[in-house]
Amino acid sequence: MTDSTKKSAILLIHCLDKPGLVVAITDFIHNNGGNILYLDQHVDSERGVFFMRIEWDLKKFAIQQDKIAEYFETLVASRYQMTAQLHFSDTKLRMALFVSKMSHCFYDLLARYESGELNVEIPVIISNHADLQHVAERLDIDFHCIPVTKNNKQQQEEKQKELLQQHHIDFIVLARYMQVLSDDFVKCYPQRIINIHHSFLPAFPGGRPYHSAYERGVKIIGATSHYVTAELDAGPIIEQDVVHVSHKDSVEDMVRIGRDLEKIVLARAVRHHVHHDLLVYENRTVVFE
Amino acid sequence: MTDSTKKSAILLIHCLDKPGLVVAITDFIHNNGGNILYLDQHVDSERGVFFMRIEWDLKKFAIQQDKIAEYFETLVASRYQMTAQLHFSDTKLRMALFVSKMSHCFYDLLARYESGELNVEIPVIISNHADLQHVAERLDIDFHCIPVTKNNKQQQEEKQKELLQQHHIDFIVLARYMQVLSDDFVKCYPQRIINIHHSFLPAFPGGRPYHSAYERGVKIIGATSHYVTAELDAGPIIEQDVVHVSHKDSVEDMVRIGRDLEKIVLARAVRHHVHHDLLVYENRTVVFE
Amino acid sequence: MTDSTKKSAILLIHCLDKPGLVVAITDFIHNNGGNILYLDQHVDSERGVFFMRIEWDLKKFAIQQDKIAEYFETLVASRYQMTAQLHFSDTKLRMALFVSKMSHCFYDLLARYESGELNVEIPVIISNHADLQHVAERLDIDFHCIPVTKNNKQQQEEKQKELLQQHHIDFIVLARYMQVLSDDFVKCYPQRIINIHHSFLPAFPGGRPYHSAYERGVKIIGATSHYVTAELDAGPIIEQDVVHVSHKDSVEDMVRIGRDLEKIVLARAVRHHVHHDLLVYENRTVVFE
Amino acid sequence: MTDSTKKSAILLIHCLDKPGLVVAITDFIHNNGGNILYLDQHVDSERGVFFMRIEWDLKKFAIQQDKIAEYFETLVASRYQMTAQLHFSDTKLRMALFVSKMSHCFYDLLARYESGELNVEIPVIISNHADLQHVAERLDIDFHCIPVTKNNKQQQEEKQKELLQQHHIDFIVLARYMQVLSDDFVKCYPQRIINIHHSFLPAFPGGRPYHSAYERGVKIIGATSHYVTAELDAGPIIEQDVVHVSHKDSVEDMVRIGRDLEKIVLARAVRHHVHHDLLVYENRTVVFE
Repeated sequence: MTDSTKKSAILLIHCLDKPGLVVAITDFIHNNGGNILYLDQHVDSERGVFFMRIEWDLKKFAIQQDKIAEYFETLVASRYQMTAQLHFSDTKLRMALFVSKMSHCFYDLLARYESGELNVEIPVIISNHADLQHVAERLDIDFHCIPVTKNNKQQQEEKQKELLQQHHIDFIVLARYMQVLSDDFVKCYPQRIINIHHSFLPAFPGGRPYHSAYERGVKIIGATSHYVTAELDAGPIIEQDVVHVSHKDSVEDMVRIGRDLEKIVLARAVRHHVHHDLLVYENRTVVFE
Repeated sequence: MTDSTKKSAILLIHCLDKPGLVVAITDFIHNNGGNILYLDQHVDSERGVFFMRIEWDLKKFAIQQDKIAEYFETLVASRYQMTAQLHFSDTKLRMALFVSKMSHCFYDLLARYESGELNVEIPVIISNHADLQHVAERLDIDFHCIPVTKNNKQQQEEKQKELLQQHHIDFIVLARYMQVLSDDFVKCYPQRIINIHHSFLPAFPGGRPYHSAYERGVKIIGATSHYVTAELDAGPIIEQDVVHVSHKDSVEDMVRIGRDLEKIVLARAVRHHVHHDLLVYENRTVVFE
Repeated sequence: MTDSTKKSAILLIHCLDKPGLVVAITDFIHNNGGNILYLDQHVDSERGVFFMRIEWDLKKFAIQQDKIAEYFETLVASRYQMTAQLHFSDTKLRMALFVSKMSHCFYDLLARYESGELNVEIPVIISNHADLQHVAERLDIDFHCIPVTKNNKQQQEEKQKELLQQHHIDFIVLARYMQVLSDDFVKCYPQRIINIHHSFLPAFPGGRPYHSAYERGVKIIGATSHYVTAELDAGPIIEQDVVHVSHKDSVEDMVRIGRDLEKIVLARAVRHHVHHDLLVYENRTVVFE
Repeated sequence: MTDSTKKSAILLIHCLDKPGLVVAITDFIHNNGGNILYLDQHVDSERGVFFMRIEWDLKKFAIQQDKIAEYFETLVASRYQMTAQLHFSDTKLRMALFVSKMSHCFYDLLARYESGELNVEIPVIISNHADLQHVAERLDIDFHCIPVTKNNKQQQEEKQKELLQQHHIDFIVLARYMQVLSDDFVKCYPQRIINIHHSFLPAFPGGRPYHSAYERGVKIIGATSHYVTAELDAGPIIEQDVVHVSHKDSVEDMVRIGRDLEKIVLARAVRHHVHHDLLVYENRTVVFE
């Protein structure tokens, strides 16, 4: 979608819909010498909310890169009560990987990282187990084993936060990290913690959803990737997909099939985040693709 | 799957797994001159239960058609505590259609019926509204408008049951019939009432699931067809499928997209029932395809 | 996507990409009192071509409806060498249905028409067989049986064209019409004839693709809907989808499964056309959804 | 599907259909004390061919493991002109990986191997480039760089065959190995070389299929895994799947999306092969799942 050879700026904007928004934004870019590379705009008519992703080439842009945010805020955003995020295509986000013992998402993300597909830096991996330390070492990524129990959760999360700060982490990916993060922790990284979990049609509450799904003979299993919020597994959905199963699939088969789905869905969600393709409004993502 | 020009018998069998089951069944057919056209057998190793669908050509079969059930019961099923259903490929099932105002599944099933795709008789349509009477009349199908309210439910269901008996109905399809059937009614047609409803990943409880799904920005909507049991929408699943949606789809769009899915999923479920392709064990279907 | 209660104008635009396009278009609408309801813009960076779909509310728009095309052409399009189409949301397109003996797409489109889902007028149905005449009559749609052979093709196509003109037809849907239209006929309705056909992975040339696909044991069958061009089945693709099959599916099963897919894919393509959601550039559609 | 803790035998059988086949096979197992764990039988009525996969527990089986093939051949297969393959669940197949520079399938298979998901031994990796040598070394897998050109193809293939023999290789996976194998080489490993390639709806011949698909605006891209035969990319299909794309996806996007699909489809195909879930008849696979 984005031409990676150009240096560009990306604005993600939302506000109440009113006449003149598109013109105000495009004029700001155009009048200052920016060439629009991408524009996707969408009005949610049920809520009356305007959403836009706009990207422009910075080569001949008259405003200095570190002044763009201030100028846009003063000249456009404040007049229309816009909420705007500004990103630059040449800034590599710094991602922390949280992992437990289940390794399928972990291996998949690292293979994408190593092959250059995933445009991020991964300076640190945090786990509550030491099992995957050797994999991190191979790739020269800092690995920290920080076991979390009910009693030490607060102090261990402090250690985690320190590490994240030291490494200037922009966002966190929970690659099947089997711990619930505290509300305090989550609040430090709003819309910047990505989780993956299995999903079913219909939902099966309780601790053994694959067993319940099997008991009712579901024909489809799914995976959902979302931003983590204080309410467990109820944050805005980034990406979902499903696969078909049959009565011949045992619980074990379903778990294996689910793993393959989880890794693809998580990788797509991470990609959307890294490319600044999405915007969160209330509890809902708007994904520009 | 089944060659429709041959006259064949179909057995659907389940019992606790033990050695010798396949041999006992195949010997019964083979020794009496039957040629096996189809055999699918499956052991659920988590429950230790054996499932089989077997179909054979009746042309040279030594046992008279109306005696097969008795002979099989005596010679095989009773010895192994099998639960068996016997069907014949040349018997057309008689199907009743229950409908309300929403017509998408209704039109779709009738078009399949009229074009000969659906191998059933549809002698009667029952609705709580008169809106679709003219469509039934065009096709010379008996149409009864039986409005159900909280107060008259019991007596109206009696009328419905009388009609079903008069028309020798084998099974009922709820083509978006917006009434909850009473437990008494459901018990008269065990595993013979097929329903269709939308499903989401994850599930959204409450009366306006499309709105809730929209609020959280789901990327996938689904439909589930199942046999009706006393517990609402918790019966054994026959068929499921999904479609992808995006943040650009309004609640109205999602409803429309869901309709297209519902009609396909319901038609597939009806087809499985009509072809005796499935078997219910506990709350789970085994679909032989 | 479009709020059906508002009266709006829709512009579909393409031209070589250059700075200032978005501003010029949005200024035209904004300065004349139009409120933008929908804007989707896309630059094909491989070809350097700009595409846009923009829709605005006409309530307070200063330019009279029948003058908008002229004003836009003079003030904007001609300056930037834009190719633009203008549509109005309150104009119902007039659609002709061409059909042969296979009725699945035909029934499906008519059910959508009758239930109000398909926002068109269908004044005329043309077939080379009389088989489905009774269905047309039920719905009071003019039905013409015009059998086409190698020898009479030219004169029969003349009859068809006369009928299409009499009925002021805007576009034609080939709902499994098994005749190849002549180049002359196709040229009269550029990007206004929609066809549906099955597709396979990989493709199987020759007259019996389902048989060839079966022979190689394909696991997926597909359907493609496209605009008809002079080159057979090579026109711009509007919509595609697939379903999974297995070795247990006979050629007959695959044909049946393919039919269900064809009707859904064709209906989606017709919907895109009717909603002015798509634009053709060279041999490629840009679908704004 | 298969309980991995039991030691079992698996027979894959095909022959012309005739009465008594199932009984003959199940009697052989039953009469010698074998308990049938899995039986799937299918008659291809278009060709009159019988296919079966049957698996039984060896714990109490009266015939010694290394004599089963001979006994079955003598007592059953030869009488009915069956073609039968015998496998044992506790034999790990030895797999060679052929790779070039594109690493997505390579990384994915190795991650599954390392995490224990893929029940094989991988003693050797062969490549025409040295790029991925360091990855093989990390996992202590023998890596050989054997560059193939037009002129040295025959002698390099001889080297490859020697390596495969030294390592007692059972089957080969071409994980995006960009060389065409000679007919002679292919004949040494009939139905034992698995390839993966992209597929489109419809097919786009020529050297740049992604570009051609892009030119016509395809909405779906696919991947097909198949056994390699003398005719290029025309061998029996093992597994296929697709993903949806849009006009917004550049050729580069389509390539990236295609890679994710290829790795999943190839892994599923390898799994089927390793589990002895499939059988080839003429140019078609029968996949028992």
